[in-house]
Amino acid sequence: MCQLLGMNCNTPTDIRFSFSGFAQRAGRTGDHTDGWGIAFFEGLGVRHFVDHGRAVDSPIADLIREYPIRSENVIAHIRKATQGTVQLANCHPFVRELWGRYWVFAHNGDLKDFRPRLHAHYRPVGQTDSEHAFCWILQELWKSHAGVPDRQELTRTLRELAQRIAPHGTFNFLLSNGDTLWAHASTALHYIERRHPFGKAHLSDDDMSVDFAQQTAPDDQVAVVVTAPLTTNEPWQALAPGELAVFAKGTRQRA
Amino acid sequence: MCQLLGMNCNTPTDIRFSFSGFAQRAGRTGDHTDGWGIAFFEGLGVRHFVDHGRAVDSPIADLIREYPIRSENVIAHIRKATQGTVQLANCHPFVRELWGRYWVFAHNGDLKDFRPRLHAHYRPVGQTDSEHAFCWILQELWKSHAGVPDRQELTRTLRELAQRIAPHGTFNFLLSNGDTLWAHASTALHYIERRHPFGKAHLSDDDMSVDFAQQTAPDDQVAVVVTAPLTTNEPWQALAPGELAVFAKGTRQRA
Repeated sequence: MCQLLGMNCNTPTDIRFSFSGFAQRAGRTGDHTDGWGIAFFEGLGVRHFVDHGRAVDSPIADLIREYPIRSENVIAHIRKATQGTVQLANCHPFVRELWGRYWVFAHNGDLKDFRPRLHAHYRPVGQTDSEHAFCWILQELWKSHAGVPDRQELTRTLRELAQRIAPHGTFNFLLSNGDTLWAHASTALHYIERRHPFGKAHLSDDDMSVDFAQQTAPDDQVAVVVTAPLTTNEPWQALAPGELAVFAKGTRQRA
Repeated sequence: MCQLLGMNCNTPTDIRFSFSGFAQRAGRTGDHTDGWGIAFFEGLGVRHFVDHGRAVDSPIADLIREYPIRSENVIAHIRKATQGTVQLANCHPFVRELWGRYWVFAHNGDLKDFRPRLHAHYRPVGQTDSEHAFCWILQELWKSHAGVPDRQELTRTLRELAQRIAPHGTFNFLLSNGDTLWAHASTALHYIERRHPFGKAHLSDDDMSVDFAQQTAPDDQVAVVVTAPLTTNEPWQALAPGELAVFAKGTRQRA
């Protein structure tokens, strides 16, 4: 299985602390060594890094750990191959354009017998069940809405689509269009919302602490979603099986 | 105006020498400082790096200069903004998927009054004339071919499309689907084909030489296409205005 990390914020925020802990699971505290990737929205643009090595010792992961890329929406993934060979085209997250925006998707899990017909214009490049599911989701979003829908409408459609895919296996996923982060849990996703007053956090996977109060402004709001909690001293909440959580401006939306 | 660099090879090849010279034009030997980008095909997958700073001192460009990413098809671009603001979404190259393959496109030039209707499913995310032209090219490719066309058919269609766009301004572009590199010249594109016996080359933009004989096997073939020649001692050839050159397996195809 794989692991997921997502971040949604109300101001461009540096993900290096969370990514440092997360990347340890790709070879040191975990065995997710069959590739990794991370996508950062910057306005409408996306920086997309994928690598088929281990995130724990990848030169590109070193860059991410050292170069403060500030973003309002980030999705990262470390892969342990279940379907598809170890090659760049199979590394998550995947990126496609819909309605003049980039959409980024990463999946943790395994889908059995889910190969719906792709009759519109999104086709997988690699071999994974995950990319096939992403292409189908975009196809169905595009078919379901004549114009560009708002967040509530998108969420309604995504909830229906997730319910159709989820019975085929394990379907934890993160999806973002640069504005909203959707997180769907099938077995394991946890989240935290950080806001004023900010405190200290200590990583579970590495001997590293940070005092967010030193790095934030009082109005900052940051939500982090991850397969297993990243820090030892914060109140992470688990999503229930079948739950689709929606994050915008660093806050969970009760939609 | 911007500058373009492309490489097409018959074996995965390291572009660091060429990129080092090229990146000097983004701030040192040239004023192309409004962003840059590079895309590397690796099999069907793509590594895509974009940055809105100057390539000459970007940490991501440092990574590219230091980390040997071997690829059979590379497209790079350094930008001097003519249309669209300086932001990540406006940085070339652009990437889209068509027929289950990624397509990468970069443009040097300026198109006036070229905003054809995009009635299919490719929409620009940024504001540039270039991305609009790329979306239109993919739309027209998709409409022109019921199945996946071969290289000759693709080239015929691309030649017609380029002829329809070119009258609107300056339209030097590079396009690749990971198999073939197409290079269209409007004002300035030069190329070289390197093959056995390999010799030494010296960069025009930096005091740096390389002896390709030390780094290659006898069967290697590499074609490099660039706005202005990168080395001082090799026989670069200029493409004629209106010419669409096709490179595959490191060799120009006479199609």
